[in-house]
Amino acid sequence: MLLKARSKLMMISEHGDERGYLTVIEGNKTIPFEIKRVFYIYGTKEGIRRGFHAHYKTKQALIALSGSCTIHLDNLERKDEIKLDCPTKILILEPNDWHEMYDFSVDCVLLVLASHLYDAEDYIRDYELFKSLHT
Amino acid sequence: MLLKARSKLMMISEHGDERGYLTVIEGNKTIPFEIKRVFYIYGTKEGIRRGFHAHYKTKQALIALSGSCTIHLDNLERKDEIKLDCPTKILILEPNDWHEMYDFSVDCVLLVLASHLYDAEDYIRDYELFKSLHT
Repeated sequence: MLLKARSKLMMISEHGDERGYLTVIEGNKTIPFEIKRVFYIYGTKEGIRRGFHAHYKTKQALIALSGSCTIHLDNLERKDEIKLDCPTKILILEPNDWHEMYDFSVDCVLLVLASHLYDAEDYIRDYELFKSLHT
Repeated sequence: MLLKARSKLMMISEHGDERGYLTVIEGNKTIPFEIKRVFYIYGTKEGIRRGFHAHYKTKQALIALSGSCTIHLDNLERKDEIKLDCPTKILILEPNDWHEMYDFSVDCVLLVLASHLYDAEDYIRDYELFKSLHT
């Protein structure tokens, strides 16, 4: 059985002045891993739910830079629904959390910072396999 | 005199399907440096121009994830105006380019990936000093 770390929400400060806003995230400092990969999800169609996987090793930080969306988390001991709706709210997503994303607003830009380069072998896309690994 | 590398625009592919869009940037792969720091600029007020600096060592990748803005570049040999207006257009900004950002649309979210953690000593904020270093 794999160890279960808890995903968690954190708020970071933004630098606001008469020009507008700027928010900074530093690898291994603001968030607990180096940033190897960045991806962003946008133009998501209405009613779409995506994700449906967990990881063996990849940690991620999720931030709604524009608009909002909801993240469903499931580590088999606990299920959570987390709304991301501002650029200073970061969800640190542990590998052992099965996650799904939904309720994307039309203007949602979801930024994801990941601890590893893409590796198809690191995705657990079968919920039954996920359950067998974690129970 | 410092060596002058040229900043350059690159287009990357997006993964589009019936769900919407997802675009990936990997450190030292899609872009020519490791991603140590990420910041994003948003809620920029009308008429604002920001930046006004160059770096000694920090390389950056700039992407307008939402809306648009214009980047003014100046390496003393050449000035450029580059419009960033889509999530697949990346400006690889060399340290030796004095840069200013302006014409932010109300909905602009400008994502910046940087090769170094924040270091106040790495900013050249005086244009005369910048000129003396590069001529």
